[in-house]
Amino acid sequence: MNINRPIKIVSTGFYLPKAISSEELERKHKLPKGWSERYSGVKNRHHVTFESNGYMGARAIESALDNSKLNLSDIDLIISAGATFDYPLPNQSSVTKSELKDGLKFNIPTIDIDTTCLSFVTSLEIASKMIDNHQYKNIIIVASEIGSKGINPNNSETLTLFGDAAAAIILSYDENGDSSFIKGAMKTYSEGVYHTVIKGGGNKYFFKDYSYDQELHSFAMNGKKLLKLAKKELKLFTNEFFEDLEYTMEDVDVIIPHQTSKIGMSLFKKTYNLKDDKVMSNLSEHGNCIAASIPLLIHQSIENKKIKRGDLCLLLGTSAGFSIGASLFRY
Amino acid sequence: MNINRPIKIVSTGFYLPKAISSEELERKHKLPKGWSERYSGVKNRHHVTFESNGYMGARAIESALDNSKLNLSDIDLIISAGATFDYPLPNQSSVTKSELKDGLKFNIPTIDIDTTCLSFVTSLEIASKMIDNHQYKNIIIVASEIGSKGINPNNSETLTLFGDAAAAIILSYDENGDSSFIKGAMKTYSEGVYHTVIKGGGNKYFFKDYSYDQELHSFAMNGKKLLKLAKKELKLFTNEFFEDLEYTMEDVDVIIPHQTSKIGMSLFKKTYNLKDDKVMSNLSEHGNCIAASIPLLIHQSIENKKIKRGDLCLLLGTSAGFSIGASLFRY
Repeated sequence: MNINRPIKIVSTGFYLPKAISSEELERKHKLPKGWSERYSGVKNRHHVTFESNGYMGARAIESALDNSKLNLSDIDLIISAGATFDYPLPNQSSVTKSELKDGLKFNIPTIDIDTTCLSFVTSLEIASKMIDNHQYKNIIIVASEIGSKGINPNNSETLTLFGDAAAAIILSYDENGDSSFIKGAMKTYSEGVYHTVIKGGGNKYFFKDYSYDQELHSFAMNGKKLLKLAKKELKLFTNEFFEDLEYTMEDVDVIIPHQTSKIGMSLFKKTYNLKDDKVMSNLSEHGNCIAASIPLLIHQSIENKKIKRGDLCLLLGTSAGFSIGASLFRY
Repeated sequence: MNINRPIKIVSTGFYLPKAISSEELERKHKLPKGWSERYSGVKNRHHVTFESNGYMGARAIESALDNSKLNLSDIDLIISAGATFDYPLPNQSSVTKSELKDGLKFNIPTIDIDTTCLSFVTSLEIASKMIDNHQYKNIIIVASEIGSKGINPNNSETLTLFGDAAAAIILSYDENGDSSFIKGAMKTYSEGVYHTVIKGGGNKYFFKDYSYDQELHSFAMNGKKLLKLAKKELKLFTNEFFEDLEYTMEDVDVIIPHQTSKIGMSLFKKTYNLKDDKVMSNLSEHGNCIAASIPLLIHQSIENKKIKRGDLCLLLGTSAGFSIGASLFRY
């Protein structure tokens, strides 16, 4: 049973901070030349210098608006989808909105949705269910992520893997077109809850009681356990995802996977026996940009004409927690 | 035009840590006796000792399940609604789920929604739109907040105002009953984006570069500006909220406002010229529990028979960012 909601991605946009090549990073951290590409699959990534989550997010939204026929006044909701933030309070979306040109003029509601790396995938599902052509006609989803600050320089794998980026899409009601949102789903496998974690900085290890420590306040990953769990569950997840649909994995025209890592991506292709030209990737040029990877890749794939109107597109990824999630739509 | 979605709050639950009376707090911080009640309107609040956001949230969910005919296996989605968290990563909902009895048995999806104090109000709207009697039949929304750690002891107002609490509700599809979700809405007034803020602990003042400082890492509020903005916008907001509905503010049986502060609550009642018996409050016994205030108050009002089946209920509040939000439902 397909439920087609008449929802259309009308435009996309992005912002990238300054690029850092792997050569530069390897030199700086005394890693062997070529280490990054060989192990994490990343040739280049972007790291913030002066930028904040709010700054990058606002620029990405403005670029999506510029690429559309809409003005900020047409937008009924701004969703900030992501795991990193400028301040513990207020929520990121309200900070991002305040940094928009004309952001103070319109009292657009602002909501944060966090399913770590899957935040954009989840937000697309939620936004598609909120759009009703009445109260909510046009929704912006923006993912603006700064992973570079929380990287442990002693961990070469994560050091070379993560990049910063922001990307935004505008989603609209479109009853007369062929575009539609078909299905979103997610599963959280709690045995993997701490396979990826930033321990310090919340209530559990509160700043007052735990001063800054590279290990405690950086992203930590148990890659082996993570891969084992993903290996066990990925196929089961997609089997169940397509079970009640009239489509199969083979019907999908374009797959936009989360850009986890070189090894994660190759597991992914092996699991589904996928041809390279169906699976989009920007890992080598941008690294893993947390929740911003997928919308940035959507933007680039549209620009490069890899995604065309009418294409059946599958977003699919994993996230800390540990979750697997997917969204299926016709572009 | 009323859009009634056949959604029912089937049960509620809560968890409270140890109580701290105002007398005790005043003695500890050398405040005059009676200061707290006089200025913040709070006689008693609860502060965590050993508890985490995840622990309290899991206990609140279990209590809501115990008060229902449902088991965890019947739940299709867990939404964690709130502004405070155990870890920067993974998201709070996945941490909370992992601490549930049987939390590892079922791969229920977990989503965080953050609109600071309005997180529960927003989540109720989103959950009501996701419930489709197919993929999503029963959704748990849990708000588990620890504000006590981020309080600046030099600021007597916030010191005496905030309490910790967790509350959960179970929302189900219910086509044959009279319960329904009618409308949710929110507006973000960006001129007030930093009227309430915790500056330190995100990317803007990253831990690595800014070590713990009471002022930087605590909740700060510009009460005067906040009140002025709320005064200007509250009435306009509700006028617009009811504009396209067949109900008016007078038709509402029970109002559950966010428990901001004594002065905030009295502004609220004055703005709408409300009778005391229509407006629920638990400020004096629990303080401001951020996003947990409203669901805790819903739970208590149902227990005390102040909310009865068929009642038209309005959730209404303000949040950091600065936003005003509301949700209208028939219980």
